[in-house]
Formats: sequence, structure tokens, C-alpha cells
Amino acid sequence: MNFRIPFSGRGHAYVKSEIDAAVEAMHAPLSLTQNKYKDEFEKKFSEYVGSKNTFAVNTATSALELSAQMCQFEKDDEVIIPSHTYTSSAYPFLKAGAKIKWADIDLDTRVVTKETIEVCLSENTRAIVVPHLYGFGAQIDEIMRLVEGSNIIVIEDAAQSLGVRVNGKMTGTFADFGVYSFHSHKNMTTLGEGGMIATDQIKYKELIPMLRHNGHCNFDFERENYWQPAMGNVDLPMLNNVPIMPSNYCLGEVECAIGVELLKRIDQLNQQKRERALYFIDSLAEFDQLDFHRVDSDRHNYHLLVAMDNSGKRDDFIKKMALDEGIQCVVQYYPLNRYDLYSKMGLGEANCQNADRFFDNMISFPFQHMLTDSELDQIIEATKRVLKKI
Amino acid sequence: MNFRIPFSGRGHAYVKSEIDAAVEAMHAPLSLTQNKYKDEFEKKFSEYVGSKNTFAVNTATSALELSAQMCQFEKDDEVIIPSHTYTSSAYPFLKAGAKIKWADIDLDTRVVTKETIEVCLSENTRAIVVPHLYGFGAQIDEIMRLVEGSNIIVIEDAAQSLGVRVNGKMTGTFADFGVYSFHSHKNMTTLGEGGMIATDQIKYKELIPMLRHNGHCNFDFERENYWQPAMGNVDLPMLNNVPIMPSNYCLGEVECAIGVELLKRIDQLNQQKRERALYFIDSLAEFDQLDFHRVDSDRHNYHLLVAMDNSGKRDDFIKKMALDEGIQCVVQYYPLNRYDLYSKMGLGEANCQNADRFFDNMISFPFQHMLTDSELDQIIEATKRVLKKI
Repeated sequence: MNFRIPFSGRGHAYVKSEIDAAVEAMHAPLSLTQNKYKDEFEKKFSEYVGSKNTFAVNTATSALELSAQMCQFEKDDEVIIPSHTYTSSAYPFLKAGAKIKWADIDLDTRVVTKETIEVCLSENTRAIVVPHLYGFGAQIDEIMRLVEGSNIIVIEDAAQSLGVRVNGKMTGTFADFGVYSFHSHKNMTTLGEGGMIATDQIKYKELIPMLRHNGHCNFDFERENYWQPAMGNVDLPMLNNVPIMPSNYCLGEVECAIGVELLKRIDQLNQQKRERALYFIDSLAEFDQLDFHRVDSDRHNYHLLVAMDNSGKRDDFIKKMALDEGIQCVVQYYPLNRYDLYSKMGLGEANCQNADRFFDNMISFPFQHMLTDSELDQIIEATKRVLKKI
Repeated sequence: MNFRIPFSGRGHAYVKSEIDAAVEAMHAPLSLTQNKYKDEFEKKFSEYVGSKNTFAVNTATSALELSAQMCQFEKDDEVIIPSHTYTSSAYPFLKAGAKIKWADIDLDTRVVTKETIEVCLSENTRAIVVPHLYGFGAQIDEIMRLVEGSNIIVIEDAAQSLGVRVNGKMTGTFADFGVYSFHSHKNMTTLGEGGMIATDQIKYKELIPMLRHNGHCNFDFERENYWQPAMGNVDLPMLNNVPIMPSNYCLGEVECAIGVELLKRIDQLNQQKRERALYFIDSLAEFDQLDFHRVDSDRHNYHLLVAMDNSGKRDDFIKKMALDEGIQCVVQYYPLNRYDLYSKMGLGEANCQNADRFFDNMISFPFQHMLTDSELDQIIEATKRVLKKI
């Protein structure tokens, strides 16, 4: 089906300075990976979010895989994850040996809350994954207070919420690990793939670069000659006296170079997305069958623009938007327990009524930042027409 | 230490058409990952190497991780790997549960042979990794004949040997899996990171894209509406009725776009590297303390230019090259059993006398394709001066 306005996999266009930075990096005389642009990107990113250490990786999934490995799950350990999120927030924890407990979401904010997490806690809880889904900052401050003093590790999945603040502090910097994504769809993308992992804890500072880059590290003794006993060492990364096998999660220099540039306007991109979202929401204020989550602050970057239909006519709406208007609305995030993967892994059941209800009635509108103002207005007008029809 | 001619982490420069292709891809209106450039890169790559199926991934290590997972090792299964190779050729197989048996190399060709593999075979051998190290095509045809009729899985690590042929057939296309690298240092690099996995076997054709992309797949039934039950499925990838957990190994579109362009001149790049290597080797013909591996055919692409010093003065040579001439020679590949990682994993012992002897006497010269002809001559002249001195 050809749509007049498709739901795009691309978040935003690049401006000239970003293209120029990429081209400059392509011409750089030294290594195109693990080099100066990575260092600069990590430094600027740390400053931007306010984290002591951030490490560039090739995908946000890699950052989640690293987080899951660093949880060092033992038998019977549980991890609390909302059923309403992208699959990468969950399956790395399965791979790392944890048992998933599905948490529900709040119907208004579409993210977990202190309460939906609290009911999942048990003596076996070892980790909690808190996605700031759609770009809205969940109650991460309250969730951190909830687990204070325990040995529970919290992972903030800030893949969609770069630049979003909860009570003045950046998402991704509250928990043990913060995960950011620069995937194609995101408010800022490093050529389609890319991610970052943040942590304030010193014990991960030397570990993560080793885990990211095949176990490479320096020899732990002074060397007379740079090539002896070899150019460098490959050691077994250890955390709490237990080994963790490394991977190769390196992000290329050109991606890092464009990331440095994008950090200069991520606040502006977020602000523009928020203004457009509020304009969109307010333009449809008279139609009370659509429930939007309206947030006029830096707690929401409107990475995505979603509504819940409360009239029971969601499917009719999407169909008419597609067939009559040529506009591709989609549905997102299939409750993870419904996917075959989780069902086959014995995780097909979840007591997440809000997540189910939201998914079954939700509409995600095309909202890529590449949309023109005219296209945005066309979506609004088409929405009005279809809502009047059904 | 500042070198006049460093050993660079970058293999080659980009020409205008490659930069243009990257910039065009940066402006593409749709998704910057898992899109048309990936399809085109895989199609052109398959045609180039002559493989039925090739799949772009974010690193060659990812391709090796995938290969290792698809071996589905069981208790006591062994994998034969040379001790003289890069660590990524080995540790994914450890992670996947295999016991490594270190194979020796041939002293002249610096790669494994049918004979060095054969002595490692046992009833527990489940897999063999054959790196075409330095860009020289190992006896992969003979090794394949050796295991014919067995259930042993062979992985060709063609990370350094793209475009290299063994008896007319491309490296990476003989074995169950062929692994290619487009890392910064390689004869062709997709912006610093990138890789490809090739296989002719139909059973991996649907599996690999799922493993690469978080388990994403289509629903296995006809759907009336594109959004129901969801936009797509996430299923548990199965091989031989045993599940394999997925990962995110996607390569971005811009990398794929530049990869398409580079395929047009990889033969030329290899030819130029080979011509330079032969010129270098022949220029030093009078100095018989350096043993080069001279191959004037498409069986060697001279990704790297290495020699073995047979005078026992290797360290003196490297030191004088560095201090007197400002030229950074390096040593490569530290026998894996000597690294702390493998030693701590109980793999510190190896009966690989050639690998040890070669490493302890080898010299790897700066040989990035970005060197000017003048720089290449400077290295040759410096080498002559230093050899005369010691």
C-alpha cells in the first residue's frame, strides 16, 4: 500500500553542519573507529546529560545487553520490565538469565509508575528496567527512592527520552545505568544506528570499555617497548570477582562526529517536536474520543505522538485514515507477552490490564520531524474528517 | 611517541564517489537502517563473492558471534582455532560453550593448513575456524575435503581476505559460514565498522535476519489489516528445533551505501596493495634475514605486510626503526593463549610452536593504503639502513 504520508522510520533530516562533520570525519587520517570523535562525543554527551561517564556503543540494544550482563543474575533472580515497551528492553535480560516479571503501565502516561513497579517487587527482584516510553519521563526519582538501600539494579531505558528531565534532572542519569538510542527513528540519529550507556559508578568505568571492545585493555605493568609482550592486552573483564565475556559494540567515528553536532540542537529538536505535538493535540481538543498525554514541559520530548481511542472504534479509524486519507497510522508497542518469542519462553502471561487496554486502543500518528507543517496540518484535518465519519 | 610514519588504524581513503554515496544516503527520506541500501549492498556483495546469501552486520565480530551461536555447541564440543589470529575469531566460540583447541600455523604462509587442523581433530570436534590471515587464502578447499561427510561446521574468517581466491573461488564461500570485515583497518571499510556473513545453506536464510534484528519477523498467517495483531512479530529463532536468542547486529544504511561503492574498486584496491607489497618485498631481496611471504596472484591481497626476522634481532630492528627512523612497525597477532583472557579461561597452554616462533620474530610494517609512494620508499630505505646497522 502506498501512503501519501507514511509512518516513517526516519526521525529527522540532517542540516549542512552535520553533513559537513560527517564528511570531515570520513576524511580523517587515522582510525575510523575508537578514536578522537568517540572521545569528543562521550565528553560532550556526559556534559549534556550530566553523567560522570558515558560510553558510545553501536546500538541501544548493545547498551541494554551490557546492562543485563552487569546485573550478573543468579538462579531465581527476577527483573521487572513493563510489558508495554520495545523488545530490546526485555530480551537481553532473558539472555542474561533473569526471569521477567511484567509490570503494568499507567493509562494516562503510558509508562510504569512507582505503584506498578512496587506490586512486582519480591525478595528475588534483582533489577528493574524503566523505559521513558514515547519520550515521557517516568517517575524515576520515586522509583529510585523505592529501591534505596536494596541491592536492586535499576536500568533507565532512555532510548526515546534524550534531553527529557524529571524534576530538573536528565532521564538516564538517575539509575545505575542509563541507556540512550540514536536509532534512525529517534529525535537524534547517528546515521541510523547508535547508542550510549551512562553510569555514575566508578566500578563500571574501566569495565565497560573492555566489554565494548573485545576485552582489549592495557597491560597492568610498565613496558619498556611498546610492542612487548604485545601491542596491548586482552583480559577477562571481571565484576565483583565474576567474569563477564566481552563483545564488540564499538560505534564508528563518523557516527560519533555527527552525534557531536546533533547534541548542539537536540534541545531545539525536542522543543520543536513538543510544540508540534501540543499544536496537534490542541487542534483536536473538541474530539474527546482521543486521549492524548499533554505535557507542556521538558518532561516530554514527544518522540512519538500517540493517542488512546476511547470509543472502541480504533481499527475503523486507522482503516479510514489509510484508505480514505492515505495516511499511515500504526499501533505500538505490542505487549511483549503476546509476542511468540516471550510466549515460547514461558512468559506469555501478564497481569497488565492497562498495557493491554492501551495497546488495543492506541493510535500512533506519523510524527517524524521531517514532516512539513503542511503535512502535519493534513494529518490533523484528515483525523478530524475521519473522526466525524465514524 | 610521535612517529613520522605511524602504523595506522585506517586502511584507505575515500574517493569522491564514495563520499557522494554516503551523503546521498544521509539525505534519503526513509529509514537509515534495514532499508534499501542494505538490500543493495547484500545483493552486490553476494554477486561479488559468489555466495547465495550474504547478510550485512555491524561488525565481523557479530558475524562470528552469529556463526558460533549457529554451531549450537553441546557439552564437550570442541572448536579448532589457530592461536595466531585476532581475538574475535575465538572468544565468541567460548561464549557459545565450546572448548577451544589451538591449532598451529604454517611458518611460511602464517595460516592454518590441512595438516595443522588434522592433528587437532577428535571425536568431539564440532567446528573449525579458518582465518585467511594477513589476506592470504588458506588451504580451505583441502580443509573442506578433510571434513567432508562429517557434521563438523567450518567457519571461514575472511575478515582480512575479501576478494582473495583459492583456486579461483572466493574466500568466504567454501565453508558453512564466511565472515567478512569492513573495519577501519581493512582493504575496504564501511566508515570504520561493518561486516558480512555469507552462507549457501537454505536453513540459515530466514534465521540470520531474525537473529540480526531482535527476532523481528513476519506473522506466519495472512493479515487483513497491516496493524493487526501488531505491526510485525517477534519470534524465537529456532535451528534444528533448538532456540537461539537474537541480538541487534544491524548495519546502518550509510555504511551500506558506501559499501556498494567500494565493491566497485575492491579488486583495484587489492591489486594495488599486492603490487606495492611485491615491490616492497623485491626491494629488500638482498636482505635474507627477513622472510616475506611472496605471492603474486589473487590468493593474497596483502591486507598486511609482514616479515619474519630469522636473525634473532627483531626487537633491535623495531626499536631502531622507531627511534632512528620514526617509523612504527608493530607485532601482530599475540598467540591467543598468551592473553590473560584465555589463560584465565584455562586455555593458556598451546602446542603451537610455529605460531609462537612467528610471533616472537615477526615485524608488521606500516602498510595502510593511504601511504604515499614516497612514504613507502622511505620505509624501504629505512629498513635497509637499519638492517645494515644491526
